[in-house]
Amino acid sequence: MGDHVYKVVELVGSSSKSIEDAIENAIGRAGKTLSNLDWFEVVDTRGHIDGGKVGHYQVTVKVGFRLKD
Amino acid sequence: MGDHVYKVVELVGSSSKSIEDAIENAIGRAGKTLSNLDWFEVVDTRGHIDGGKVGHYQVTVKVGFRLKD
Amino acid sequence: MGDHVYKVVELVGSSSKSIEDAIENAIGRAGKTLSNLDWFEVVDTRGHIDGGKVGHYQVTVKVGFRLKD
Amino acid sequence: MGDHVYKVVELVGSSSKSIEDAIENAIGRAGKTLSNLDWFEVVDTRGHIDGGKVGHYQVTVKVGFRLKD
Amino acid sequence: MGDHVYKVVELVGSSSKSIEDAIENAIGRAGKTLSNLDWFEVVDTRGHIDGGKVGHYQVTVKVGFRLKD
Amino acid sequence: MGDHVYKVVELVGSSSKSIEDAIENAIGRAGKTLSNLDWFEVVDTRGHIDGGKVGHYQVTVKVGFRLKD
Amino acid sequence: MGDHVYKVVELVGSSSKSIEDAIENAIGRAGKTLSNLDWFEVVDTRGHIDGGKVGHYQVTVKVGFRLKD
Amino acid sequence: MGDHVYKVVELVGSSSKSIEDAIENAIGRAGKTLSNLDWFEVVDTRGHIDGGKVGHYQVTVKVGFRLKD
Amino acid sequence: MGDHVYKVVELVGSSSKSIEDAIENAIGRAGKTLSNLDWFEVVDTRGHIDGGKVGHYQVTVKVGFRLKD
Amino acid sequence: MGDHVYKVVELVGSSSKSIEDAIENAIGRAGKTLSNLDWFEVVDTRGHIDGGKVGHYQVTVKVGFRLKD
Amino acid sequence: MGDHVYKVVELVGSSSKSIEDAIENAIGRAGKTLSNLDWFEVVDTRGHIDGGKVGHYQVTVKVGFRLKD
Amino acid sequence: MGDHVYKVVELVGSSSKSIEDAIENAIGRAGKTLSNLDWFEVVDTRGHIDGGKVGHYQVTVKVGFRLKD
Repeated sequence: MGDHVYKVVELVGSSSKSIEDAIENAIGRAGKTLSNLDWFEVVDTRGHIDGGKVGHYQVTVKVGFRLKD
Repeated sequence: MGDHVYKVVELVGSSSKSIEDAIENAIGRAGKTLSNLDWFEVVDTRGHIDGGKVGHYQVTVKVGFRLKD
Repeated sequence: MGDHVYKVVELVGSSSKSIEDAIENAIGRAGKTLSNLDWFEVVDTRGHIDGGKVGHYQVTVKVGFRLKD
Repeated sequence: MGDHVYKVVELVGSSSKSIEDAIENAIGRAGKTLSNLDWFEVVDTRGHIDGGKVGHYQVTVKVGFRLKD
Repeated sequence: MGDHVYKVVELVGSSSKSIEDAIENAIGRAGKTLSNLDWFEVVDTRGHIDGGKVGHYQVTVKVGFRLKD
Repeated sequence: MGDHVYKVVELVGSSSKSIEDAIENAIGRAGKTLSNLDWFEVVDTRGHIDGGKVGHYQVTVKVGFRLKD
Repeated sequence: MGDHVYKVVELVGSSSKSIEDAIENAIGRAGKTLSNLDWFEVVDTRGHIDGGKVGHYQVTVKVGFRLKD
Repeated sequence: MGDHVYKVVELVGSSSKSIEDAIENAIGRAGKTLSNLDWFEVVDTRGHIDGGKVGHYQVTVKVGFRLKD
Repeated sequence: MGDHVYKVVELVGSSSKSIEDAIENAIGRAGKTLSNLDWFEVVDTRGHIDGGKVGHYQVTVKVGFRLKD
Repeated sequence: MGDHVYKVVELVGSSSKSIEDAIENAIGRAGKTLSNLDWFEVVDTRGHIDGGKVGHYQVTVKVGFRLKD
Repeated sequence: MGDHVYKVVELVGSSSKSIEDAIENAIGRAGKTLSNLDWFEVVDTRGHIDGGKVGHYQVTVKVGFRLKD
Repeated sequence: MGDHVYKVVELVGSSSKSIEDAIENAIGRAGKTLSNLDWFEVVDTRGHIDGGKVGHYQVTVKVGFRLKD
């Protein structure tokens, strides 16, 4: 990482398909406005129940990206 | 949520296929005896190992449902 | 407490007024179906935002009550 | 565990003798109304003091049991 | 929540009146620059003491809002 | 804070009225025997239930005060 | 608890015999200088190993006692 | 579990495909040098981001196995 | 501890008798293959239920030992 | 703090020299784009190992700053 | 530790120089009024920012000392 | 990280000089018997007090290293 500084933002991605898809949705959205995305960490996995089944997974991720010097 | 009151129960779903399938099994079973299931949160993900592979995922979820007034 | 056994249930009370009112709503609802309520503990305080203000407080409480011997 | 679903309930057992006795009291009481008790986990150990000595141990346990399919 | 993505920011609101007022101050300030505020969660409640009384409550809240697609 | 050293004590204030009142009671009592009280942090909010309502809020606070050099 | 205020102190009791004995030693010592001891909570259980066996249990307890008004 | 003793080791499995695949990779590698693998628990789920997508999931698991008597 | 380096391993001891006996079993087994065992810390206390009673206590301990220089 | 509102951002500073230097790097970088920085809290200390030595300390800090009214 | 009983107090030391210096300041101050100081544990590391740099490190330590029998 | 698997071990390094030196001692010792050391995380910072000053810092680190395929 050299002497760089990173910022960490917290996002919640949702998906009706899977936990992995919810994570990808959060990261994909982050990439629209942020550059140099580097890592993520899952901090919460929850969701809504609809008709006795999982309606949406809602996965909270922290996403780290390098700040320009 | 208006002024409703919700109850939260803790369940462990298991599945030999995936984490998502274990969650669905827990929620599906809850729906047999409880109405108005609303949300869930994953609180633990573990499992048994069988022959050097994952035998069963065992996912502990908290499930929230609205109580009748 | 003598040699009694207690059970702890988790409830979410909501209120548009205050945190205390949300707690009272949860406990009041519990008292409709459970006897010998003894203590509570707040485990989470959150809520919905509506029009830039708190719409409802949603307070998760654990409520302990004595089981009949 | 196969594809079974388990429920987890939280109980507080008390005893003037020992931590183990408080755990046994909680599990014994649970067995009066629940079948297929499978495992427990201690989540809190506290108690009342009486005359400068431990009056009662109060041990909070989570107890897991298999739900009928 | 559909397949939306949400961002979570951390704010500290303060108030000399009450915990609820400090929460409202944080949310009110967030609404000046952010749209689609959706939920909050209290993560810390502290404050300064002034003249042997609470001078200000300082309540740390996480505030979630929906990002535009 | 300069190079001062602070001590932190843990107190439980109780009140039948509100969480804020329980906090004020704890701080008010601390001020009878301690000087230079500076900050507090709420670490637990619980209470007794009496007749199906909150009997007393019991709020555990850590209180920090500056030690004389 | 009425409107009393309680103080909580942290002690480590040790014993070569058992966890319960280490708790009793901590509470017994506290009672020599403090009055109105009311409750305790175990926050850590550790110990030294001596000759391949437990030499001493060292149990950290928080002890609460009522302050004089 | 009888009176057996188990050891718990911490591993990080990685996979570009899914969380489950990362878990299987960790357990599969453990089985090359350890016998009697019994259970696992997920303790952290993170990963690297590559080109605005998940590059690799990195899942930290604790793996328990029975020691020979 | 001088400038020594210590390693910490995680073990689960089990016993049908008591929590202390499960701890001793874990430490006794560790001593068969490791030298210079120095301290332990209990990190989890759980067990299996058999016939409505505790079948086995399963106590997870971290055990620290000094590495040879 | 008066009735101000503060925002908290999470940064990771790195340094090959020391933990303090990594903290200063994170704060120094924050000050390039944010005004009224007020406090920080260390939430994680980790790093990369290079050639059997610490290559870089990577210290995660939360940094609080006052928002304009 | 024999059968001694230890007390643990929580202090916050501050220093403009380093984390270690803040720890030494807390312990040095404790030694003015307490005897038989034995160990410490860092429980929080934070500080004030002044002019875009660390103004003071504020390190919260728990300090354990042996009580006279 | 590709599809490698990593192992994480827990070590306690000590030093009379500084927290960083205790970390280096733990990592240096690990490197004598383990290859491919990759990262570390500090999980606890404590120490012994000697003559009213820090005698030794004792820093618990988790160290991750890549396993051979």
